[in-house]
Amino acid sequence: MKKEYCGLFGVYGHPEAARMTYFGLYAMQHRGQESAGIVTWDGEKIREQKGMGLVADVFNERHIGRELKGDIAMGHIRYSTTGASLLRNAQPFLVRHGDLRLAVAHNGNLVNTKTLREELEAQGSIFQTTMDTEVFVHLIIRHLHDNPIEEAVRLACRRIKGAYSMLIMANDKLIAVKDPNGFRPLAIGRLGDNYVLASETCAFDLIEAEYLRPLSPGEMVVIEDGKMHSMQMFEELQPKKQCIFELIYFARPDSYVFGEVVYERRKEMGKVLAREAPVDADLVMPFPDSGNYAAIGYSQESGLPLELAMIRNHYVGRTFIQPTQGMRDFSVRVKLNPVKSMIQGKRIIIVEDSIVRGTTIRTRVKKLRELGAREIHMRVSCPPIKHPCFYGIDFSSKGELIAANHSVEDIARFLGLDSLHYLTIPGLLSAVSRENEYCLACFDGNYPVKVEDSAGKMCLEDNGGRPGIIKEYC
Amino acid sequence: MKKEYCGLFGVYGHPEAARMTYFGLYAMQHRGQESAGIVTWDGEKIREQKGMGLVADVFNERHIGRELKGDIAMGHIRYSTTGASLLRNAQPFLVRHGDLRLAVAHNGNLVNTKTLREELEAQGSIFQTTMDTEVFVHLIIRHLHDNPIEEAVRLACRRIKGAYSMLIMANDKLIAVKDPNGFRPLAIGRLGDNYVLASETCAFDLIEAEYLRPLSPGEMVVIEDGKMHSMQMFEELQPKKQCIFELIYFARPDSYVFGEVVYERRKEMGKVLAREAPVDADLVMPFPDSGNYAAIGYSQESGLPLELAMIRNHYVGRTFIQPTQGMRDFSVRVKLNPVKSMIQGKRIIIVEDSIVRGTTIRTRVKKLRELGAREIHMRVSCPPIKHPCFYGIDFSSKGELIAANHSVEDIARFLGLDSLHYLTIPGLLSAVSRENEYCLACFDGNYPVKVEDSAGKMCLEDNGGRPGIIKEYC
Amino acid sequence: MKKEYCGLFGVYGHPEAARMTYFGLYAMQHRGQESAGIVTWDGEKIREQKGMGLVADVFNERHIGRELKGDIAMGHIRYSTTGASLLRNAQPFLVRHGDLRLAVAHNGNLVNTKTLREELEAQGSIFQTTMDTEVFVHLIIRHLHDNPIEEAVRLACRRIKGAYSMLIMANDKLIAVKDPNGFRPLAIGRLGDNYVLASETCAFDLIEAEYLRPLSPGEMVVIEDGKMHSMQMFEELQPKKQCIFELIYFARPDSYVFGEVVYERRKEMGKVLAREAPVDADLVMPFPDSGNYAAIGYSQESGLPLELAMIRNHYVGRTFIQPTQGMRDFSVRVKLNPVKSMIQGKRIIIVEDSIVRGTTIRTRVKKLRELGAREIHMRVSCPPIKHPCFYGIDFSSKGELIAANHSVEDIARFLGLDSLHYLTIPGLLSAVSRENEYCLACFDGNYPVKVEDSAGKMCLEDNGGRPGIIKEYC
Amino acid sequence: MKKEYCGLFGVYGHPEAARMTYFGLYAMQHRGQESAGIVTWDGEKIREQKGMGLVADVFNERHIGRELKGDIAMGHIRYSTTGASLLRNAQPFLVRHGDLRLAVAHNGNLVNTKTLREELEAQGSIFQTTMDTEVFVHLIIRHLHDNPIEEAVRLACRRIKGAYSMLIMANDKLIAVKDPNGFRPLAIGRLGDNYVLASETCAFDLIEAEYLRPLSPGEMVVIEDGKMHSMQMFEELQPKKQCIFELIYFARPDSYVFGEVVYERRKEMGKVLAREAPVDADLVMPFPDSGNYAAIGYSQESGLPLELAMIRNHYVGRTFIQPTQGMRDFSVRVKLNPVKSMIQGKRIIIVEDSIVRGTTIRTRVKKLRELGAREIHMRVSCPPIKHPCFYGIDFSSKGELIAANHSVEDIARFLGLDSLHYLTIPGLLSAVSRENEYCLACFDGNYPVKVEDSAGKMCLEDNGGRPGIIKEYC
Repeated sequence: MKKEYCGLFGVYGHPEAARMTYFGLYAMQHRGQESAGIVTWDGEKIREQKGMGLVADVFNERHIGRELKGDIAMGHIRYSTTGASLLRNAQPFLVRHGDLRLAVAHNGNLVNTKTLREELEAQGSIFQTTMDTEVFVHLIIRHLHDNPIEEAVRLACRRIKGAYSMLIMANDKLIAVKDPNGFRPLAIGRLGDNYVLASETCAFDLIEAEYLRPLSPGEMVVIEDGKMHSMQMFEELQPKKQCIFELIYFARPDSYVFGEVVYERRKEMGKVLAREAPVDADLVMPFPDSGNYAAIGYSQESGLPLELAMIRNHYVGRTFIQPTQGMRDFSVRVKLNPVKSMIQGKRIIIVEDSIVRGTTIRTRVKKLRELGAREIHMRVSCPPIKHPCFYGIDFSSKGELIAANHSVEDIARFLGLDSLHYLTIPGLLSAVSRENEYCLACFDGNYPVKVEDSAGKMCLEDNGGRPGIIKEYC
Repeated sequence: MKKEYCGLFGVYGHPEAARMTYFGLYAMQHRGQESAGIVTWDGEKIREQKGMGLVADVFNERHIGRELKGDIAMGHIRYSTTGASLLRNAQPFLVRHGDLRLAVAHNGNLVNTKTLREELEAQGSIFQTTMDTEVFVHLIIRHLHDNPIEEAVRLACRRIKGAYSMLIMANDKLIAVKDPNGFRPLAIGRLGDNYVLASETCAFDLIEAEYLRPLSPGEMVVIEDGKMHSMQMFEELQPKKQCIFELIYFARPDSYVFGEVVYERRKEMGKVLAREAPVDADLVMPFPDSGNYAAIGYSQESGLPLELAMIRNHYVGRTFIQPTQGMRDFSVRVKLNPVKSMIQGKRIIIVEDSIVRGTTIRTRVKKLRELGAREIHMRVSCPPIKHPCFYGIDFSSKGELIAANHSVEDIARFLGLDSLHYLTIPGLLSAVSRENEYCLACFDGNYPVKVEDSAGKMCLEDNGGRPGIIKEYC
Repeated sequence: MKKEYCGLFGVYGHPEAARMTYFGLYAMQHRGQESAGIVTWDGEKIREQKGMGLVADVFNERHIGRELKGDIAMGHIRYSTTGASLLRNAQPFLVRHGDLRLAVAHNGNLVNTKTLREELEAQGSIFQTTMDTEVFVHLIIRHLHDNPIEEAVRLACRRIKGAYSMLIMANDKLIAVKDPNGFRPLAIGRLGDNYVLASETCAFDLIEAEYLRPLSPGEMVVIEDGKMHSMQMFEELQPKKQCIFELIYFARPDSYVFGEVVYERRKEMGKVLAREAPVDADLVMPFPDSGNYAAIGYSQESGLPLELAMIRNHYVGRTFIQPTQGMRDFSVRVKLNPVKSMIQGKRIIIVEDSIVRGTTIRTRVKKLRELGAREIHMRVSCPPIKHPCFYGIDFSSKGELIAANHSVEDIARFLGLDSLHYLTIPGLLSAVSRENEYCLACFDGNYPVKVEDSAGKMCLEDNGGRPGIIKEYC
Repeated sequence: MKKEYCGLFGVYGHPEAARMTYFGLYAMQHRGQESAGIVTWDGEKIREQKGMGLVADVFNERHIGRELKGDIAMGHIRYSTTGASLLRNAQPFLVRHGDLRLAVAHNGNLVNTKTLREELEAQGSIFQTTMDTEVFVHLIIRHLHDNPIEEAVRLACRRIKGAYSMLIMANDKLIAVKDPNGFRPLAIGRLGDNYVLASETCAFDLIEAEYLRPLSPGEMVVIEDGKMHSMQMFEELQPKKQCIFELIYFARPDSYVFGEVVYERRKEMGKVLAREAPVDADLVMPFPDSGNYAAIGYSQESGLPLELAMIRNHYVGRTFIQPTQGMRDFSVRVKLNPVKSMIQGKRIIIVEDSIVRGTTIRTRVKKLRELGAREIHMRVSCPPIKHPCFYGIDFSSKGELIAANHSVEDIARFLGLDSLHYLTIPGLLSAVSRENEYCLACFDGNYPVKVEDSAGKMCLEDNGGRPGIIKEYC
């Protein structure tokens, strides 16, 4: 079962559609650094450019300015933690069927593709990739013979289960769909007379588009002839199950996601933390930049001074030079260096946004001890992550989920802390605007959509019933 | 007259001297991104590797692990704003003279090399570069016939005028010198049994070396046979004239420079600012990351909340894709995006570390206005920069010095601010530990060392007596 | 209708299967420089690496030594003259269907895929590429449900029409097939205990494999469990229609192709030319290297001295520097420079292997005139090419077929020759061992397999009934 | 003592001087593949671009079209077999001295630079490279104070000993000099109204310049204000001692060198060989391409048929894939593959231009035996190379000189030949036009210019008096 962070961007009717898509993806690069792709439609031909690596590496001016012609475009960036990071798996996924040129870009993770795939293969379908998306495309094509494309997409959506926000380009139509629980974000904006779509609104800001609203769960939006039509694909409304991790950690703080301002929610989580777990200390500090905003909230609520006492080396990039044996924890130290005089003799509160494996944090805490910190307390702006996500967040990218198998006391001891507090689930929900609209499965194990694929189930079983890290099936 | 920011690193007696130098330079990359070089001595042969670009691009494991043999090494990183960014001008500068292999790395700017150069050419010297350093090397060689190397270096230092911290490798000796005013930083540290030297102590932190002390003005340190000797090169002590811009802007906040903790001095400047120019507002924010530490100081002193409301795109790198005509101020917006909800209707204090040309700041202020900021006040943590620096800080990299020709009121109007305050000179001096030890020429025009070269003088004259931007002579 | 030169290589049971395939492709690089791909099977997993460019650029030691695991491997190199040189179209073409991993590499061109494609799309198939090969793979899968893989391949082969030599890897089986007319070459060899397959035997020479025999038309060879089985796929034998252009021009002179030694056949063509069209002259020379071997034959038969008087620049590669306006015919001159003293005042016979568009030859002849050649006669070792090839040779790569629309006299005048003679068809057939076994359609227009696709037909019609250059349909 | 093959090119007065120089170097790439450099003068400024690698890799359109401004240009390509292949040693060598910008490009090897260097160092000179050229430049500068540049160059030439053809750019003058024995080639040509200079005339052919004449030994040519002046630098004429290896092996066959047509001289050497050492055989063949032209001569004189039976892989380039252990002699086989049917049962005469170490030839002979050759005779178009060259040909690039220590019989046995004959010295001289004008030191040990440097002498002594391979001193 593959897990992917991804970013989507689409634009309809812009004379420089590929260029707008390029910048939209560029602004959302944090959502996926493994591969990038753009497809365009110029009224006659579909064109594509995909490659491994960052947006700035995959595309050049020749691609954007000359080759990717057309005023409809959509793009995708992908992050995958599996070994199978192949160009073959880069998106958008493009097929030709008669006169139809169909491209699909997908953010999320389906939970019944294994079953669907076997069913399709029995009917003669062949697959070139391991992506859920290819299954979805086959479903569209199977329904296309008796139906217009919109209906074929709707019928395909009703067969698949799990989390998906998708963009679909079908010749001169641009279609966006969201699953009935609304797991993953997707927003609509306006750029002059044209519609734009993006996973996060920071993409709109860069191209100076105006944010209109998020897509609703189960909604299908069709842009055609410059006009946008919306429909609900499902008869029965499902409860909203938006991914709260987008707010805690994943989205950019300057984005709107699910209609929320990410920056403000993170600060609010810090404030709740300060009320839930106050401690007498000399200063509050984040491990930059992930904990910055919750730390601001904690500092403002507690009245303790905020310090940015871990200094980032702004030029850290890929280096192929290895440290010597004696240079322990080099890869941790090279990124952030503490300011000794701010640490020595101090009682410190560190605010972090999450703890997954904990090894990096442990190294940093140890370094602070060596520099003479008197007390080190940690406050985490989310509850303990005890369960894997089947809907598109890959915690395995950071290794084992430490909270799945260890008590908070054990974790505090492992990390070398004087105290440790995780934000409670009620505390977390009090920090967001509408508390009933989020998926909390990674905290409480209540999965809103059943995982049908045996692969997923097996993995749970393999792990002695305890949820663990799910690997890709081959 | 060339101006250079630079970084120096040296190590004596370490089995992986080149590797330590690599990491030392890597930690100081902010001091120069144009070229990098390392030389080593293995008891018999000198070896060098230099190249254009970042440290991580210039060196690979083959260079560091195999080719740059020896237990004495020194390295240099360079930043130059002139068109003449040639590999030819990369340092360390290496010459062969009989059995002597001599390498010199220089940080700073000399003010009498034109005169010296003409004198040397009259004696038959030839020059391959336009660097001050080549003149210095010729002076050493001229004195070498009757003197040991230490004495030749001392005599050469007495001929040159201006700002210099230098490392000199002369076969198995590693020598460090600082000019009699001590303009530019250079620190001594200890790594196990070995001595290390670096422009900033953040280089020591990365390789876990211990910081001992800064070099004194006029001091020469010779490391030989594992031992360090120190001497004063000049009979008469000069007043300390350390570059206060290292503390305001240039050095990393986690470094010690001239014995000061940079982070604390910047925070203190922010506190003084808050006392000098208080204003009623809703929040204090920096333009990241340069204003971060002064903004913390201002927030703590004023009691106003600190917000990090300009969000950095962490993946901004080189992109060769051009924005469209309509995308105004793209290059400014792509780096930092404000969080709209933090700005709208707010009275904002922005803390910056300096204003050179002002155009970027102006664009950002305009953007904040568009997002609905009610009031925008700016507080700058240094006095107005009115005079060019002849000792190694190249303000021209940012274009015209706006404060040289405009009043504070004019600048505030140009930037679109409700109010603008620069830290006063007495305020600045009150924020550092020893207020008599700094060069303030860029603020008050009192140049502690006379600029002898006609190039420098001409430029001043060309400018109608008013100091301006000095260009390189060819 | 796409035309491709291609090279195939396969090996079964070798511990370094990917490495052998790499070197096999490397030896056949002249058959395709656009893209290269290798797939391997290790008993459990299929692996692939494909890329644009030369074999040496697409693969590195990590791919060959570590990632492409398994003792069965096959590879493909491709040359395409169309704009659609996409990685997407690189081969081998790989699909997953249930537990089956199927890879196909194809050399040749089919003539009924448009029809088949429409039929398959009507049944729900989707296509990701414009390659014939994808159609073939769909056909295999459609037949797979009731049949073992060998039978599915055989049934698929009976649906397709045109020219094909193909390698098929189906989990642990390696299958080779050739069309019933045997248009394109494919040879079987032995490397220790293992079987190898290659388009040309020069691939065997490099890895020191032993050449066994060519595949027969209509033959299917299955290698499984280290054993090879052969079968005839078609009930009725078709006449052999081997591509005589492999012998004239395309294959390497050190290869066996269709059981013939290419070098000897080319020399024989030159001898027949000398008998068909003798001329009194001072010397015989080729335009290297294509005419070398026929020129040797002409010289030996005529007794006139052979000179290699056009000197190749061995370092000509990609240069991005443009010549000036005044430097006419630069791209022709940069490759070959005549030795003036060998040309001046001489009566010269030039032996060439073919004339397609004629513009390069014209430039060279003009240059020889400028250097003072007294007479220039050209002898061409093949008949005039008057008709397009639908079976896999893309004459369009060199532009218009000059002989399709012009008389020999016109061509001689265009090229600036004193005389011009093309080898006659009977002369050509007398130079090969078995004269009834070759396709001569490009000379006489007798197409042995009817072109069904309307694309092909349309193009003929578009051209006013006269055959011309066929373009790819989109 | 370094040995270098090199190529020089200069042009005066051309509006695209850098572009002409680029193409001139490109045509002579066989003379040096290690580094390339071009300098230009635009009346005010000197500009340079140098880099490691082929001409096509070192320069791009930006360099040639924009940066290297000016209508005077000169360039250099270099080949060095020593480990010290550093960019630092790339030429032209450029210095600044007062207002003078001086660039020097050198082909050849001096024999008294060690002495001169010590003398110059005693006067305060410093050296940045190990190149002879730097010594020469110091000598020019030392003489410049009392003399115009032409006289300073002349006086410098009179101090240096050995082999040199040099181009010197001194602001708006372009100067060419040749040593009094005329060891290395340099030719003058005309391109429209402008003068051009090149090591070989194939450079003229590419840019369509007209060849005028070779420089004479001891001649200095000064191009200034569009006019050329010539003078003899030495009072007493020395005997011509041109490097006969340029004719045998090094120059391109389409070049004029020392006034000779290289192609014709090589063919003549083959004819003399056929007369000196006839043998009854089935065919004559070269190992391409070095033996091609002598083989043609041998074939024409003997009447035996010429075959090009070793086929080159035209796509052999850098591959980083290693063959397996079992693949013996891979690197030899990958370049040339014999045509088996031309070898089997045949009596073969192989014509080669030289034998240095013999290992590659041995492998090829063994391969021919394996393919069934009945007899293999080798004829070599030069006498045995028994002595090192001190004037610029680096035999060490091919390893040990096999003929220095072994008899012809021993060598024939080592190579596995049925017979072996080397061209005799009288035979060689009979094949060139003026037999008294060549240096034969590598054959007979009579060095026309004494090697003064102890380095050279020591190496001879180290080798027990027998000449061997000379290594670079450090």
